[in-house]
Amino acid sequence: MTGRALAVSLGDPAGVGPELICEAWARRKAEALPPFFAVGGAGLLAQAAEARGLSVPIRPVSDPAAAAEAFADALPVLAGEDAPYRPGEPSREGAALALASLTRATALAVGGAAAGIVTGPIAKARLAEVGFHHPGQTEFVAAACGVAAQDAVMLLAGPQLRTVPLTVHCALADVPGLISVDLIRSRARITAQGLRRDFGIADPRVAVCALNPHAGEEGRFGDEEALVIAPAIAALREEGIDATGPHPADSLFAPHARDTFDVALCMYHDQALIPLKALDFDNGVNMTLGLPVVRTSPDHGTAFAIAGKRQANPGAMIAAIRMAGEAAARRAEIA
Amino acid sequence: MTGRALAVSLGDPAGVGPELICEAWARRKAEALPPFFAVGGAGLLAQAAEARGLSVPIRPVSDPAAAAEAFADALPVLAGEDAPYRPGEPSREGAALALASLTRATALAVGGAAAGIVTGPIAKARLAEVGFHHPGQTEFVAAACGVAAQDAVMLLAGPQLRTVPLTVHCALADVPGLISVDLIRSRARITAQGLRRDFGIADPRVAVCALNPHAGEEGRFGDEEALVIAPAIAALREEGIDATGPHPADSLFAPHARDTFDVALCMYHDQALIPLKALDFDNGVNMTLGLPVVRTSPDHGTAFAIAGKRQANPGAMIAAIRMAGEAAARRAEIA
Repeated sequence: MTGRALAVSLGDPAGVGPELICEAWARRKAEALPPFFAVGGAGLLAQAAEARGLSVPIRPVSDPAAAAEAFADALPVLAGEDAPYRPGEPSREGAALALASLTRATALAVGGAAAGIVTGPIAKARLAEVGFHHPGQTEFVAAACGVAAQDAVMLLAGPQLRTVPLTVHCALADVPGLISVDLIRSRARITAQGLRRDFGIADPRVAVCALNPHAGEEGRFGDEEALVIAPAIAALREEGIDATGPHPADSLFAPHARDTFDVALCMYHDQALIPLKALDFDNGVNMTLGLPVVRTSPDHGTAFAIAGKRQANPGAMIAAIRMAGEAAARRAEIA
Repeated sequence: MTGRALAVSLGDPAGVGPELICEAWARRKAEALPPFFAVGGAGLLAQAAEARGLSVPIRPVSDPAAAAEAFADALPVLAGEDAPYRPGEPSREGAALALASLTRATALAVGGAAAGIVTGPIAKARLAEVGFHHPGQTEFVAAACGVAAQDAVMLLAGPQLRTVPLTVHCALADVPGLISVDLIRSRARITAQGLRRDFGIADPRVAVCALNPHAGEEGRFGDEEALVIAPAIAALREEGIDATGPHPADSLFAPHARDTFDVALCMYHDQALIPLKALDFDNGVNMTLGLPVVRTSPDHGTAFAIAGKRQANPGAMIAAIRMAGEAAARRAEIA
């Protein structure tokens, strides 16, 4: 195996990130995972593997270029910062390690030494205490790439469904005022381009959700469909993007309807996440579209309560590594 | 077989109602369905059965009391109004038949001659043209029972999930202003009583959804959780109802979370219907709680486009008949 490996940041070391990195490496053959390396935490990862009952030889490397070859026989770990493994006990020291790992992993991907970046789960409030001033990792990576936050699009992908939320962490009452023709057009455009580039879908079908129940039933309850969403869809179609809708959101995620689109553009957080998590809770990936680098993340949090207890499901971490590897391979082919 | 049968109204005769009634009867043994009779439309049902390729002997009865015994060998149809079968071609005549069937079926259930009522799907706008002045069948049946519309609670039940939407056909922008402590308490109370009476769940677990993403993250985005939802839950618990929440809605419908409650009380239409339809589109039942009579309905529309084409899935009609039969049997035991 040669070529570049993916950089995986530790996430908060008191969370489930470290043990899931070890678990993913242990399953690398069964899951046919692309080569990856952890960024920092060599000692901590050895302890996390042991706590999980895994036999994971750690191979410290000083150069990412050595990682791909080492990957078959050991978990490559970029030498650097480390901390004691204290699962379930978040600390300032741990947050500093998480930030250092994220910063370095991102720099390696941006600089081209890594094929892409997979970010472990962090606790945002704790990271803020050690100087992290972004709403989340997505915005951090975007900034490192010189991309405006609003042009970094969050794609949520499960085994049966992909969704993009147009608005995320805001009150539901604020959603109607936040959606606009420009926002829908811009996000749909970046989304379609991302599906072409990273998923190899030549002409992505973008299903745009309605905001109101039954798409407002021709204005009987709510006019955002007529005033905002339909005009945005018409403009997107003018540009050659296969956008459809506004679709009543309650039936769009039904089994037969899911086959009719490649991604659903959703108006708010729960519209995008309810169907995804109802259908599959354990294998969701958060991918950032619109960046010059590939970036994915398992779609779960630090799960401090179960860290170190052999309970954390590695499905999402494995899916995030696989998706990043596939996207990186597609970009390399095209380049 | 003795006892009372369920009354099934035809719904709009140009829709899929008639053929699904015939299909349900044809599968009565395999599905172990309780006895039911159609209200009117004897000639129309014979044609609908033929169009669907079913052998369904029609047994006109003048008294509902004769239906249960006739059910084993033929589809009992209460003699009365009829119309030609013109699938996919809604008409004023058809709407009049739908309204007559609904009115009579409801009266039979209210008067005690039928064990309960299962309503076929109607087209509200068409029914309005022939003098129907209710938002839907739920409100019509409630009025016939002398129950205020706001005390008739819509329960949506699929094979894996039951939900109750607190608000239904209103703009999403209006939802935050419509939810209140009183509304949540009243709906939760009627819901819990309904699950006890009609489903035999002694101490129903009522999971109350948050309105905002992540339940607002302690007020960071939205205060309805703190100001409205949490106080309502506390009051419900004071009354002895096992209400919990406010739960972030995105993870509440995940596989492991669904086992932790018997019903989810949702703040708006799509919050209740997205997970239900994503998980199972073909077997959803709409049941009205809080009425002196049992009333269910398949959770789909008239589907004019596929009526008469042997395409309509009978799952929801069969589930609606079964659920009504089980609820009626429980009420009879208790009475």
